[in-house]
Amino acid sequence: MHAFMARAFPICRSITGDGVRQTLDLIGEHLPLTIHEVPTGTRVFDWEVPREWNIRDAWIADAEGNRVVDFADNNLHVMGYSVPVDATLSLEELEPHLYSLPDKPDAIPYVTSYYKERWGFCLTHASREKLAPGQYHVHIDSTLADGSLTYAECILPGESEEEVFLSTYVCHPSMANNELSGPAVTTWIGKWLQSAPRRYTYRIVFIPETIGSITYLSRNLDALKARVKLGFNLTCIGDEGGYSYVASRYGNTTADRVIHNVLSLKHPGHVRYSFLERGSDERQYGAPGVDLPLVSVCRSKFGKYPEYHTSLDNLDLVTPAGLAGGYEVIRDCLEAFEANHTYRVICLGEPQLGRRGLYPTVSTPGSGRSVRTLTNLVAYCDGDNDLIAISDLIGTPVRELVPLVEKLEAAELLRRVD
Amino acid sequence: MHAFMARAFPICRSITGDGVRQTLDLIGEHLPLTIHEVPTGTRVFDWEVPREWNIRDAWIADAEGNRVVDFADNNLHVMGYSVPVDATLSLEELEPHLYSLPDKPDAIPYVTSYYKERWGFCLTHASREKLAPGQYHVHIDSTLADGSLTYAECILPGESEEEVFLSTYVCHPSMANNELSGPAVTTWIGKWLQSAPRRYTYRIVFIPETIGSITYLSRNLDALKARVKLGFNLTCIGDEGGYSYVASRYGNTTADRVIHNVLSLKHPGHVRYSFLERGSDERQYGAPGVDLPLVSVCRSKFGKYPEYHTSLDNLDLVTPAGLAGGYEVIRDCLEAFEANHTYRVICLGEPQLGRRGLYPTVSTPGSGRSVRTLTNLVAYCDGDNDLIAISDLIGTPVRELVPLVEKLEAAELLRRVD
Amino acid sequence: MHAFMARAFPICRSITGDGVRQTLDLIGEHLPLTIHEVPTGTRVFDWEVPREWNIRDAWIADAEGNRVVDFADNNLHVMGYSVPVDATLSLEELEPHLYSLPDKPDAIPYVTSYYKERWGFCLTHASREKLAPGQYHVHIDSTLADGSLTYAECILPGESEEEVFLSTYVCHPSMANNELSGPAVTTWIGKWLQSAPRRYTYRIVFIPETIGSITYLSRNLDALKARVKLGFNLTCIGDEGGYSYVASRYGNTTADRVIHNVLSLKHPGHVRYSFLERGSDERQYGAPGVDLPLVSVCRSKFGKYPEYHTSLDNLDLVTPAGLAGGYEVIRDCLEAFEANHTYRVICLGEPQLGRRGLYPTVSTPGSGRSVRTLTNLVAYCDGDNDLIAISDLIGTPVRELVPLVEKLEAAELLRRVD
Repeated sequence: MHAFMARAFPICRSITGDGVRQTLDLIGEHLPLTIHEVPTGTRVFDWEVPREWNIRDAWIADAEGNRVVDFADNNLHVMGYSVPVDATLSLEELEPHLYSLPDKPDAIPYVTSYYKERWGFCLTHASREKLAPGQYHVHIDSTLADGSLTYAECILPGESEEEVFLSTYVCHPSMANNELSGPAVTTWIGKWLQSAPRRYTYRIVFIPETIGSITYLSRNLDALKARVKLGFNLTCIGDEGGYSYVASRYGNTTADRVIHNVLSLKHPGHVRYSFLERGSDERQYGAPGVDLPLVSVCRSKFGKYPEYHTSLDNLDLVTPAGLAGGYEVIRDCLEAFEANHTYRVICLGEPQLGRRGLYPTVSTPGSGRSVRTLTNLVAYCDGDNDLIAISDLIGTPVRELVPLVEKLEAAELLRRVD
Repeated sequence: MHAFMARAFPICRSITGDGVRQTLDLIGEHLPLTIHEVPTGTRVFDWEVPREWNIRDAWIADAEGNRVVDFADNNLHVMGYSVPVDATLSLEELEPHLYSLPDKPDAIPYVTSYYKERWGFCLTHASREKLAPGQYHVHIDSTLADGSLTYAECILPGESEEEVFLSTYVCHPSMANNELSGPAVTTWIGKWLQSAPRRYTYRIVFIPETIGSITYLSRNLDALKARVKLGFNLTCIGDEGGYSYVASRYGNTTADRVIHNVLSLKHPGHVRYSFLERGSDERQYGAPGVDLPLVSVCRSKFGKYPEYHTSLDNLDLVTPAGLAGGYEVIRDCLEAFEANHTYRVICLGEPQLGRRGLYPTVSTPGSGRSVRTLTNLVAYCDGDNDLIAISDLIGTPVRELVPLVEKLEAAELLRRVD
Repeated sequence: MHAFMARAFPICRSITGDGVRQTLDLIGEHLPLTIHEVPTGTRVFDWEVPREWNIRDAWIADAEGNRVVDFADNNLHVMGYSVPVDATLSLEELEPHLYSLPDKPDAIPYVTSYYKERWGFCLTHASREKLAPGQYHVHIDSTLADGSLTYAECILPGESEEEVFLSTYVCHPSMANNELSGPAVTTWIGKWLQSAPRRYTYRIVFIPETIGSITYLSRNLDALKARVKLGFNLTCIGDEGGYSYVASRYGNTTADRVIHNVLSLKHPGHVRYSFLERGSDERQYGAPGVDLPLVSVCRSKFGKYPEYHTSLDNLDLVTPAGLAGGYEVIRDCLEAFEANHTYRVICLGEPQLGRRGLYPTVSTPGSGRSVRTLTNLVAYCDGDNDLIAISDLIGTPVRELVPLVEKLEAAELLRRVD
């Protein structure tokens, strides 16, 4: 995953344009994608697909012709959606077009202006303070023109038409946790899903954030509402910070149940952010009338780590171990949901586990602890609880319950009731 | 409010009698009151309206004729509902008729005997200890005779026949927080209510505590149960202590919701007393079968401050600032309830606030915080929550939500659904 | 109770055999018992009644003929259900048949092998370490043969056919808290129940644990499910440790309510164990499909005190005071349940308690506290709460509410509505 990110990192992505297409090409090496292009001006709910933005070059040169800021060094240097400019300005005239962070003097901030025509440069505050009074030549070779918004969809059919929905975004330039960790983990989850037949159909989308999810919803809302039983938005999922998630609007969907179950047992120190702290595409998926059962899953949540939306969110912050951890949490969630059924114990009273080789035959102080999980599972297999509910009740991960369920089914002690 | 209290303070009120009438006259200078007189002996639920008590003079004189206790100094000196007496007694014979507080030696206690014929004098423990053995002349010039119980009602009609009910009491002699703060704040709330058209009809009563609320209920129960949507009993609401309220019997009425909402956001250190700590007219309004949606609102609750029911509960304890704070809490509650409607966002997904001038057009780290309240409001305007519920969910007072709702309605983004 | 235990203590009980019968004979001196014998091989739910085990003698002698372990000293020395043996073995050959506790060197452990044929001896670790290498003569004079499982039932008819179910077990050899405290307290509760007419019919069973409750359920399930409104399993209820109970599967039965009410008010430091910590016959009574409203009540819960399942669980650990405390808790629970009715106050508003002699006639600061319980009772007698609910709400034990209810009924202020 980290190597994939290294290839995709230099691409200058935005909410539209060739950067998105190049990134989707890289993902397409791993997953069967359908690419969709939605023309500029298309009405999508309350919004409109904007003009497409592409950029080739941009710099600021001082009076001697030295490039003091250069897009070729880092694509964060240009404000996203900057309109073309080629002019010579005094430092004073230039200042309103410069963005830097006094409290993080070595970070280039990430700034965009999607919905109002502007141009601007972002730079470290340290560089900015070195700019001497004088004339500067600013040059942005960009295009803002009718085109299209690009996204990709990957459908992996399962036994059921019921769906699990995975969403991640491909619209930020060179940032690692708050961009590429999501597509990387999502792509590798997709590869794992393809490795075996699945109960659910998986719908995976790689989209630009906000306008992309709105566009996708506007074209697929009925299908999503009818079929999606569980959804995750994957973002900021590759650093080594603790795990977190942004709950749904009321925190009561299946997605909340599943992520809570997995994180509580595997990472009890995780953070649950309420919907009030939303900021990614859970904003759209959880909006009134959309109401998909979806949460956003993160390690260090967007907006909660100091490198967020700056050039410091790079391939050092995201690590192979960080990505592997994020991947495992999502895989555990999907495995739990795939295995989630409701069972009822067939006999009355406790079953005689001993004669079936499931219980120690000699009772000593302490014996029986090893079968405690098994008897707890049986006790709560009363037809009212699915495995996730039982896992919550007895504190054992679903992945440990599944082989026990198989033993008990083989012993004709359990019957599935859903 | 404080000046009003200063005028009303010297009046000797009780549960019946001319003191109540004089106090209602003062209130009537500010509000349109209907005065009701209910004859002695009238059956009111399980009770009976008692005889009317009036008092003109009372004193204890020592053998030299010095008045050692004198009603003219402080009307708390006479036990409420004392029957007439004119006799000479030894100190020993007098003792059973004296009431003082050894642990508060400078306070005259407030004592009454409404339902058994007695006479008595209340005095500071310091004075009591100075009484030398000897003969004392006791004199109480009071009348306990058939008459009536007096209360006042003020109806302020609104658009709807649904009502807000405000109750306060006028039955204690010279005490400030546990008596006149309630009528003062209620009167000024009434003046404010008259200053503009209101959604709800307001029913305001000034009554003697307990027997008065029972009397009022016995004559108005059906109307109250049919119309009252929100009720407050105002008592002990003028000192500078923290805010508190006495919850309804199960703590689940609209009144509990409204006061909880306002106090949680404005005075998070407030105290919620359960119905087990009731003591004022919430006892009657919340009794089984009456079940009005009402809470009692206080600053320092009756029985919880050291000056309570003594001469120390005076015009120093209650201050203009204390009264203003109580007034504001009640006004905030009524404003929130008047404004409380349920809305549904019209578009799917988040609305494009930017093109409506409701969102900053340049995204920088930190931008967007200022519109967070707006987007949170929209997110929970899903047709399930009224504004008070949204206020609870997102932590913003209703009074700050109202102008945002107006903006969103003007932008045709919200529709009222109730 | 302690004297009863002293008589029953030496008997070698097991899940079947004459030890059970002798114990039931002792109980039968106090309660009218019906003894049931269920033949070996009878199918009971998922189980089968095992062969009957009886033992007459057992010892290990060293080469000199000294009995180094002797059943005559303590019946815990023989593993329960040991098959007969008479052989001479080297110490090395003997070792796999010996059970001791290195961390409790002076305790003889309690070990059984009901469902696999084995023989074994249990001894203190101190004794075991003294065994010198050499030959040992082992002798167990036991019988494992077709016979029956024995249990006793005591039905005490009440006004109603609705039942309270009490269960305790008689299957452990010489142990006090985790065995005889249960039968002792249960027997004395039975004697108390016989002392007066009761509202409910009481069904009391003395059974072997696990196989006994399964057997009993398999023969009485329909009747139990139809009639039992409250059940307690009594175990480990005679030591001087704090009180505890094992909640039902979801902690929401009437039994949970009753024991929670009584212990919360009487022993607020008690421990509530969840069903995950079950271990006695609540396992069967609370199994899916059985679902009786039953909790297990203990002082120091099985498995939670160091003497558990060893020879240290003796008549010193269980004391007369400990037994009396356990008895009182159960009696309080049953009294509360017998008295548990729902009432509605007849008048509107608060009743005038004064004219009925239920309220002080002079109001002073502090007066009224003594009638607070009475007024709280009245306030929550709204037809929605039974006395246990009111007790929980107002924090007064049911036994203190009952005389107040009687006063209020006599004053025609309350009416029963169930």
